[in-house]
This record gives sequence, C-alpha cells and structure tokens, in this order.
Amino acid sequence: MEVEVLEGIFDANEIIAAENRRLLDEHGVFMMNIMSSPGAGKTSVILAILEGISKEYSCAVIEGDIAGKVDSERIAETGVPAIQINTGGSCHLEAKQVNTALKRLKVDDLDVVIVENVGNLVCPAEFKLGEDLKVMILSVAEGHDKPHKYPLMFSESDILLVNKIDMIPLTDFDMAKLKETVTRMNPRVKIFEISCRTKEGVGEWIAFLKNVIAEKRKK
Amino acid sequence: MEVEVLEGIFDANEIIAAENRRLLDEHGVFMMNIMSSPGAGKTSVILAILEGISKEYSCAVIEGDIAGKVDSERIAETGVPAIQINTGGSCHLEAKQVNTALKRLKVDDLDVVIVENVGNLVCPAEFKLGEDLKVMILSVAEGHDKPHKYPLMFSESDILLVNKIDMIPLTDFDMAKLKETVTRMNPRVKIFEISCRTKEGVGEWIAFLKNVIAEKRKK
Repeated sequence: MEVEVLEGIFDANEIIAAENRRLLDEHGVFMMNIMSSPGAGKTSVILAILEGISKEYSCAVIEGDIAGKVDSERIAETGVPAIQINTGGSCHLEAKQVNTALKRLKVDDLDVVIVENVGNLVCPAEFKLGEDLKVMILSVAEGHDKPHKYPLMFSESDILLVNKIDMIPLTDFDMAKLKETVTRMNPRVKIFEISCRTKEGVGEWIAFLKNVIAEKRKK
Repeated sequence: MEVEVLEGIFDANEIIAAENRRLLDEHGVFMMNIMSSPGAGKTSVILAILEGISKEYSCAVIEGDIAGKVDSERIAETGVPAIQINTGGSCHLEAKQVNTALKRLKVDDLDVVIVENVGNLVCPAEFKLGEDLKVMILSVAEGHDKPHKYPLMFSESDILLVNKIDMIPLTDFDMAKLKETVTRMNPRVKIFEISCRTKEGVGEWIAFLKNVIAEKRKK
C-alpha cells in the first residue's frame, strides 16, 4: 500500500496564511508583505507607495515591530489607517497576527493592505502571511554580497527594491554583480533601483505595482 | 517549606556559554561578540581590529553566517585563522557552535577571539556565547530610530559602534538623539563614532579595546 505524504498542510502558520488569502481574495483586496534589514527603508517605501496609489485605492497598513510605534505614527500622519502589531521579542510576523489585524481593519472597505514586517533579513522569509506579493528591500549601504548570506529572503521575494542608490558613490556597491547573483538564485524576481530620498526610480516601481494591483482587482 | 526557584540554570545555552567563558578565562583569552544588522560593517570592523591588534596579540575569528563563506575568506586573506560556522537557516549563533569552534582553534595558542554573529538585530542579543564583550554596530544608513524598535540589542551591548559616519550628510541621522535614547536604555554603554571607510574615529575605538584586552590578560 502506498503511503500518502502530507507536506506542509499541518503547519499552523500555512493554514492561517491560506485563510488570510481566501479572505482577501473574496473581497478583491491586494496584500503585499514588505521585508528588509533594519533601516533599509521599509517605511519610506510604504510612504512612497501610499503617495502613488492612495488616491486611487483605499489602503491600510499593518506595522510589525518588536516594540514601539514610531512607524505606524508616521503612516497615520498621512491619514491612512495603520495598525501596529508588537511581536514582543519575536523577530518576524506570523499569519495569525495579520489575521487579527485584517479582521480589525474590516477588509470589505479596503482595496490594498501593506504589511511592514519586522526588520530582519532571515526569519520573515520563512513565514507566509497570505500576501499576493513579497517585496524585499536591500539598502545600497548593506553591500552587494548579501544574497550569499541570506539566500532564502532573496529566493522567496517577488520584488527586490535596491534602495538608497544615491549613496552608491560613497560605497563599493556593484549593481551588476548584485543583479547577476540574485537572478541566478531567483530567475522570476523583478528588480527596481530606487532612492526614496531623491525619488529616482520610484515612478517605475509604482507604475509596475499599479499594474499588478489592477490585474488582481479585475478578477 | 520554601520553594527554591532556579532561574536560567537549566537553559542549555547558558550552561555552555559559561563553559566557554571558563575555557577562555583559564587560558587568558579575550573573546568579543560582534553583532549588527546585515551590512552594517561587522567584517570591516573586524578587519580594522585585526589591523590594530594582531601584531601584539595572537587572534582568531569565528564567522557566523546562515550560508556562504565570503567573510571568512576575507579574514583568511589577512593571515589570521578563521573558522566559518554555517547555521543553515538559524538567525543567530549559539554557545554550542562557538564551543566547537573554540576547541578546533586550540585556545592555548590564542590571546583574542573575535566572533562575527549572524547579521540580525534581534535574536543574537538573546544568546550568550561566553564573550567578555558584546559589541554592536549600527550603520548611519539604518537611522537613529532603531533603539526603539530593537531594544534588547541596544540594552545588552557593552559597546555601540556607530559606523559609516561619512554617510551622515546623505541622511537625516541625528547623532545626539541616538546617543540620548541609547544612554537612557543602557547607561553603561560606551559609544564610538567611526567610519571603517575613512578610518575616522577607528583609532579611539582600537585604543579603548586594547586597554580592555590588556586588563583581562593582566589577571
């Protein structure tokens, strides 16, 4: 008799992530999960996204941090609803926490949910939240050698935003080398070079994102 | 009858960390644990330390990474022995891994061991390795608001190296604000402002470190 192998489906996080995804799909809501090291620019990227799409789409932000609420306060200043999740020591968000936040936000009034994960290039890559798009940010200041050291994050992401490109002259950052390494690890990744400070490249990234959101909402 | 409360001593990591410390103390070896976000400059700081002290002291480096060995290869180029620990997914080093590396390195021939932890501002702060000094690095590019979000790392560290100060003009980094916040959370922390790229401030940090090492080795 053949033994049936059941993989992954007993993982509580995956079950709840799938539940989140179903809830979002039912209401035509697009959710993205923004991940990076501390200080690579997650909040600045979110502010740029809100500036680009919040006139067209009803948005909300879920902020994950170990402690504090500086980021959610920055978001709330824009008038977009923000919910803060404090993980209390844990280094990543889990689907359950996002589920609680989604229910609090009332998804039927929303078009787009942006999740800012805890600043960490390791564990957030392991936990699905039910998102439509995994976006990772690498700051130029971190160096082009990071894919070798944090392979899961670079392999799992749909989008790589290389941020702070205005700092390149002060570093030995090699963009061609980075792109070559990342593309080898993850051939389907889309890479955008941006600076949230100077706004360089931000327009292209937002235009791409608008297309992806519109695609989901057509269905 | 009074119930005796035994705290911490059943924690396997703490037991092995204490064992590491005893092994190092017996041989008069000084060990430091270098922690930071990905790309804040751990390897560059280690190269600067080696340049400053390796003529005087016999040094070795233990490199912690999830995968790869780029950093240990950079260290080995200097002629200093380096051992690479690949954690295979885990986001921090544990005392057991350092114990294995210490035994491999033969501590009786050494004066100083430098441990480069996995790039992560969260979990490494929770795991003692048996070190004499916890050194954390914050890159100016990460921003001055990080202590609020990663309080354990800032509270646990003996030394905070604020690196890449040559990048300050390209950021809104507020050094006074950072120092005020960190000192409130951790009054005993020593803060050095450095740039491994321009070498600014590195001399003072190395002079301080030499004193601390000499202090232990006198005993």
